[in-house]
Amino acid sequence: MKHFFLIASIFFSIHLTAQNDAEIIKQIYSTSLTDGKSYSWLDHLSNQIGSRLSGSLGAELAVEYTKAEMDKLGFDKVWLQPVMVPKWVRGAPEFAYIETSPGTTTNVNICALGGSVATPNAGIKANVIEVKSLKELETLGKEKIEGKIVFFNRPMQADAIRTFDAYSGAVDQRGAGARKAVKYGAVGVIVRSMNLRLDDFPHTGGMGYGDLPVSQHIPAAAISTNDAEKLSAMLSLNKDIKFFFRQNCQQLKDVQSYNVIGEIKGSEFPNEYIVVGGHLDSWDLGDGSHDDGAGCVQSMDALRILKQIGVKPKRTIRVVLFMNEENGLRGGTEYAKVAKEKGENHIFALESDSGGFTPRGFSFENGDSFVKKAQQWKSLFEPYFIHYFEKGHGGADIGPLKNDTVVLAGLVPDSQRYFDYHHAKNDTFDAINKRELELGAATMASMIYLVDTYGTK
Amino acid sequence: MKHFFLIASIFFSIHLTAQNDAEIIKQIYSTSLTDGKSYSWLDHLSNQIGSRLSGSLGAELAVEYTKAEMDKLGFDKVWLQPVMVPKWVRGAPEFAYIETSPGTTTNVNICALGGSVATPNAGIKANVIEVKSLKELETLGKEKIEGKIVFFNRPMQADAIRTFDAYSGAVDQRGAGARKAVKYGAVGVIVRSMNLRLDDFPHTGGMGYGDLPVSQHIPAAAISTNDAEKLSAMLSLNKDIKFFFRQNCQQLKDVQSYNVIGEIKGSEFPNEYIVVGGHLDSWDLGDGSHDDGAGCVQSMDALRILKQIGVKPKRTIRVVLFMNEENGLRGGTEYAKVAKEKGENHIFALESDSGGFTPRGFSFENGDSFVKKAQQWKSLFEPYFIHYFEKGHGGADIGPLKNDTVVLAGLVPDSQRYFDYHHAKNDTFDAINKRELELGAATMASMIYLVDTYGTK
Repeated sequence: MKHFFLIASIFFSIHLTAQNDAEIIKQIYSTSLTDGKSYSWLDHLSNQIGSRLSGSLGAELAVEYTKAEMDKLGFDKVWLQPVMVPKWVRGAPEFAYIETSPGTTTNVNICALGGSVATPNAGIKANVIEVKSLKELETLGKEKIEGKIVFFNRPMQADAIRTFDAYSGAVDQRGAGARKAVKYGAVGVIVRSMNLRLDDFPHTGGMGYGDLPVSQHIPAAAISTNDAEKLSAMLSLNKDIKFFFRQNCQQLKDVQSYNVIGEIKGSEFPNEYIVVGGHLDSWDLGDGSHDDGAGCVQSMDALRILKQIGVKPKRTIRVVLFMNEENGLRGGTEYAKVAKEKGENHIFALESDSGGFTPRGFSFENGDSFVKKAQQWKSLFEPYFIHYFEKGHGGADIGPLKNDTVVLAGLVPDSQRYFDYHHAKNDTFDAINKRELELGAATMASMIYLVDTYGTK
Repeated sequence: MKHFFLIASIFFSIHLTAQNDAEIIKQIYSTSLTDGKSYSWLDHLSNQIGSRLSGSLGAELAVEYTKAEMDKLGFDKVWLQPVMVPKWVRGAPEFAYIETSPGTTTNVNICALGGSVATPNAGIKANVIEVKSLKELETLGKEKIEGKIVFFNRPMQADAIRTFDAYSGAVDQRGAGARKAVKYGAVGVIVRSMNLRLDDFPHTGGMGYGDLPVSQHIPAAAISTNDAEKLSAMLSLNKDIKFFFRQNCQQLKDVQSYNVIGEIKGSEFPNEYIVVGGHLDSWDLGDGSHDDGAGCVQSMDALRILKQIGVKPKRTIRVVLFMNEENGLRGGTEYAKVAKEKGENHIFALESDSGGFTPRGFSFENGDSFVKKAQQWKSLFEPYFIHYFEKGHGGADIGPLKNDTVVLAGLVPDSQRYFDYHHAKNDTFDAINKRELELGAATMASMIYLVDTYGTK
């Protein structure tokens, strides 16, 4: 009989705990959807501040604003973590055209890739050689490439179901195209935008010259998908057409910036740290609502919601708004360095940096055994249509935290629309759906709640 | 040993079949995403034809266009099924304002509800009584309501995760508000739009007067959510403000229209029918891209894709584009009536009428044992992020097919954005994402393929 009561009491306590978790998660979602702050914060960040490229005024205003907002939330501590960041500036709007014969030109939409050098003031005009891959450069060799502009035109794979897979499969052209092409004597590089749609927006993004001496840096720009199609079609009719482009972007000296951090101290295990974050910097063309204003306000609201509904964390939970994900990762690197120096035991880090769309689940990096644990929580998430709990990428900013024990996790929103906006002028607040953003914040808060309650082991 | 081979051979044949199914489903998705027709068909339907309210020119042009397109696809048979439909016309744009004192007015955005009568030519001006439910009318009684405009202002429930649940919980105000309010002497009805967002678009939709004699019909209109908030706030300050509205919509005589049907004959069980469909009519304010142009073009492409990749159906598969879902359901009713008369054994009907957003799965009505069977197919759909296979609503148009055996199914897309556009001026082609639409078509085609291959038992 004693055993019966023991077993019954364990059973009921497990049962009650699960009930309690379900109840708390319900409160989290309800609070986010009826009394969330993420949408109004993002409205301010996007519409009052705007783009937030590292080192820009927007980035600094965003640091001030999010710090001030977190100061109001009654967290145990809010502070700025200094970090030096690169400052690249676009300069005057870029200009480009296709010249079919002297005097006959068609304007096209381009933008300098982040980190690119300028063209000479008068621009560059040259013949174009279209390639579909970095490898194709080898095949063509110096003979076919020297003195020309290399046009990288391999589209993202349309039948990849996860658009991030399509991105990974195409983005080498943007990142490494210039430094590979220069070896064969190219004078410039034009890259088809990383966009699955056909439209007129050029999409910027990071590129690098590797170890090349500055004298060998050639300018690189993205062209809209519509104009990439146009250029390709015109080349197929006439290989002798010329392409002109002009851009006057430049890399300035590093400047001071900050990660913005808010913290609630853990009551039982204060030296076990849980991080929830996004990156505060954005590219400069849109206002960075999806990339990654959404992730920042969701992270802030995740912790705020837990506080509002009365959750007292056992472990220390931090919101971290990382600076400089887009062109340097200095914020993520600095955060991990300081955490290591201070001996802070980070057990879990969750990043939202895939847009503010309907959340579908999580991908987990560096936590094989944790994936099984998280999959046992699946039924708690089912009422919210959260179904994806798989191994995969965590997030760029939390990557430097990687060690033998920390679990890195990424929020996985629906990815279909993401690259319609990514790094382009149309990544703006009107592309955000309030409910989708709020569901994402609630999904993050729920996972943070469960990890805080049950740990990662 | 004999048993071993028998078991092994069964095992391998099951295994090979599953492999084959996975391969075919992969082809379906790939074809839809790289060589689909749904998006260009919808472009024409939305941008060249536009809104398609039953009995309108748009509806008739849509019948002609979709029939002509299906004629090109090499189906075994394409035909028009005649059906008489109601013809309600909106007339001149509606006009409304709030009058705080004589001469001091604020214009607000309204639209007549579908099926409503007009106001007198000079409009109606009266005091307003705000209620949150049909039940509240009883409590207030004739004394408080007589001579006034009843303002139904219960919002859709923001923390319902499925927006269709929030819709179901609020739409009684639109459907039955007028016929209930008239009993207490109301002179008109204004209903808060069925929209979870705060914006300026009024959302129309069906309403009815039940058995009330024509002399007792009072005009009913929807007001945008922003203006509903404004009106409510002004009423809380001053109960004596007046509301003016004018609309001159009218119900004309029924006119001839058609369901559009395409068919591929089954090779083994030609009298087992599988239907895939949507409704071709739409409301008149937008161009009906989500409701339900999307469902029509997805259905057409589902069958076209199966044909393109060489699937030879065992059962007869029909695409049915139903006429008059929005204000009469005449097309669905007629289709079911004719099917019954002809003794056609319908085993499965799948409708897409919840928008062209990222597909999440299916809801099944009238097929308890089938749900278990479908859930065994879950792993085939997992690579496409299709995870929802539950009991629920099939679809309005396929509803009349209900009998003891047919399985009714609804495609379940992500629902978060649907009511931002539903029945409003902004339900237009630009709100459609090509990939999401195509994924929906592929998801439908895959389910149709499996039902055709394995039946519903």
